[in-house]
Amino acid sequence: MHLVGDDEHPATPASALVDDPQYRAGVVDLLGVLAYTELVAFERLAADAALAPSISDEAALAFMATAEIRHFTRLVERLSDLGVDPWEAMAPFQEPLAEFHAQTAPSDWLESLVKAYVGDGIATDFYREVASLLDDDSRSLVLEVCSDTGHANFAVATVRAAIVADPRLSGRLALWGRRLVGEAMQQAQRVAAERDGLSSLLVGDVDRAGFGLSGLGEMFNRLTEAHTQRMATLGLQA
Amino acid sequence: MHLVGDDEHPATPASALVDDPQYRAGVVDLLGVLAYTELVAFERLAADAALAPSISDEAALAFMATAEIRHFTRLVERLSDLGVDPWEAMAPFQEPLAEFHAQTAPSDWLESLVKAYVGDGIATDFYREVASLLDDDSRSLVLEVCSDTGHANFAVATVRAAIVADPRLSGRLALWGRRLVGEAMQQAQRVAAERDGLSSLLVGDVDRAGFGLSGLGEMFNRLTEAHTQRMATLGLQA
Repeated sequence: MHLVGDDEHPATPASALVDDPQYRAGVVDLLGVLAYTELVAFERLAADAALAPSISDEAALAFMATAEIRHFTRLVERLSDLGVDPWEAMAPFQEPLAEFHAQTAPSDWLESLVKAYVGDGIATDFYREVASLLDDDSRSLVLEVCSDTGHANFAVATVRAAIVADPRLSGRLALWGRRLVGEAMQQAQRVAAERDGLSSLLVGDVDRAGFGLSGLGEMFNRLTEAHTQRMATLGLQA
Repeated sequence: MHLVGDDEHPATPASALVDDPQYRAGVVDLLGVLAYTELVAFERLAADAALAPSISDEAALAFMATAEIRHFTRLVERLSDLGVDPWEAMAPFQEPLAEFHAQTAPSDWLESLVKAYVGDGIATDFYREVASLLDDDSRSLVLEVCSDTGHANFAVATVRAAIVADPRLSGRLALWGRRLVGEAMQQAQRVAAERDGLSSLLVGDVDRAGFGLSGLGEMFNRLTEAHTQRMATLGLQA
C-alpha cells in the first residue's frame, strides 16, 4: 500500500470537499457504498447466524453483526454532516450489492463463514487502499469503520477445524472462494463504470493525485495477493 | 394484570432463587426462553430489513433489531450471574422457536411488519404477566427487556398506511394475524407441557403463589383481548 502524503501522492486537503466538486462527489460515493455495504453485511450476518450449529456460535455471529451497525451509523452521520441525504448517497449501490448477494447466497454455515471472511477481507482491503487518497477526516473514518469486528478470527478457526475434520470440504470451499471473488470483481467494475465521482477519485486528475491507471492495476494485484493469502489461512487454494 | 405483592399474591423473595429449586428452575427457563426469543427476533428483524421498500426503512428496521441484542446481552449476563450456562438454558427452546418461525415465514414486507408487531406484542404481554410472579430483580430485568424498541409505532404506521392505500390487503393480513396467534399458542403449549419448572412457576405451588389454573385461563383471556386490540389498531379484524 502506498504511503499517505508522500511526494508522489500529497494528502488531499479537507478544503477539497468544498472546492473540488468531483472530489466531493467521489467521497460521497465512497461513504455511500461503504454505508450500504455495512447495512447489507449486517442483514446477511444476522440471517446467517440462524445457520450456526450451536447457540453460542449463533450469539457470536449476532454480536459481530451489531458491530456493522455501529459503523453504518458513523457513516450516515458523516454523510449528513456533509449536507448530503445519506439514503440518496446509498441508493446507486443498492442494486449491485443486492445482485452480488443474490449470486452468492451461502448454502450452509461454512459457506457463510468463508463468504464473510473472504468477502469482508477483500472489501476492507479495497476501502483501506482508497482511504490513502482521502483528506484526513474522511480517511480516519474509513479506517475506523474498516476495523476488524472479530469476525475474521472466528471464521478462520471454525473453517480450519471443519476442514481438518473433513478434508473433502476443501475442494468445494475453494471453488466457493473463487466464485465470491469473481462476483465481487464483476460488481465492482459495474460500479466503477457507472459512478464518475468514484472512478475519478481512484484514478486521480490534474488537480489531485489518485492511483493513476497503472497504479490501479497494481492496487488490484495487491488485493488479489491478499485474497490468496486469506484463502491459504483458511487452508484453501485460491 | 394482577398487582405485585398484594394479599393474594405476595411477592416472591429473592432467596427463593437459592432455597426453592423449582422456582429457580422456572426462572432459569423463563430467562432462557426470553433470551432465545430475543436472539431469534434479532435475526428475523435483520433479515426482514432486506424486504424494506426504501433504504431509510431498511435502516430503521436494522436499528430496531440491534435493540433486541442489547436485551439478549442483559439476559445472558443474568443467567451467568445465577451460575447457569446461558446456552444450556436456551437450548430447550431452540426447536419450538425455530418451528414457530418456519411456520410463519413472512412472504412480504407487510406480513413481516404484522408479524413483528403482533408476535412481539403477544410475547411481551405474556412475559410481563409472568414478571408479576417473580422476585424483584428478576421482575425488573424481564420488564426492562420487554420495553418497546420503537418497532411497534413504525409497524402500525406503515401497515395502516398500506391498508388505506389498498383496502383489499386487510383480508389477507387479518388471516395472517390469526395464523400467527394460532402457531404461537401451539408452540407455547408445547413448551409449557415439556418444561416443569416453567409450568410450576405459572401455576404456583404450596409455597409460592402463581396464577393458579383458573388464573391461567384469565391470563390467556387478557392476552387474547390485547391481541384483538392490536389487530384493531392495525385496522384489522382479529
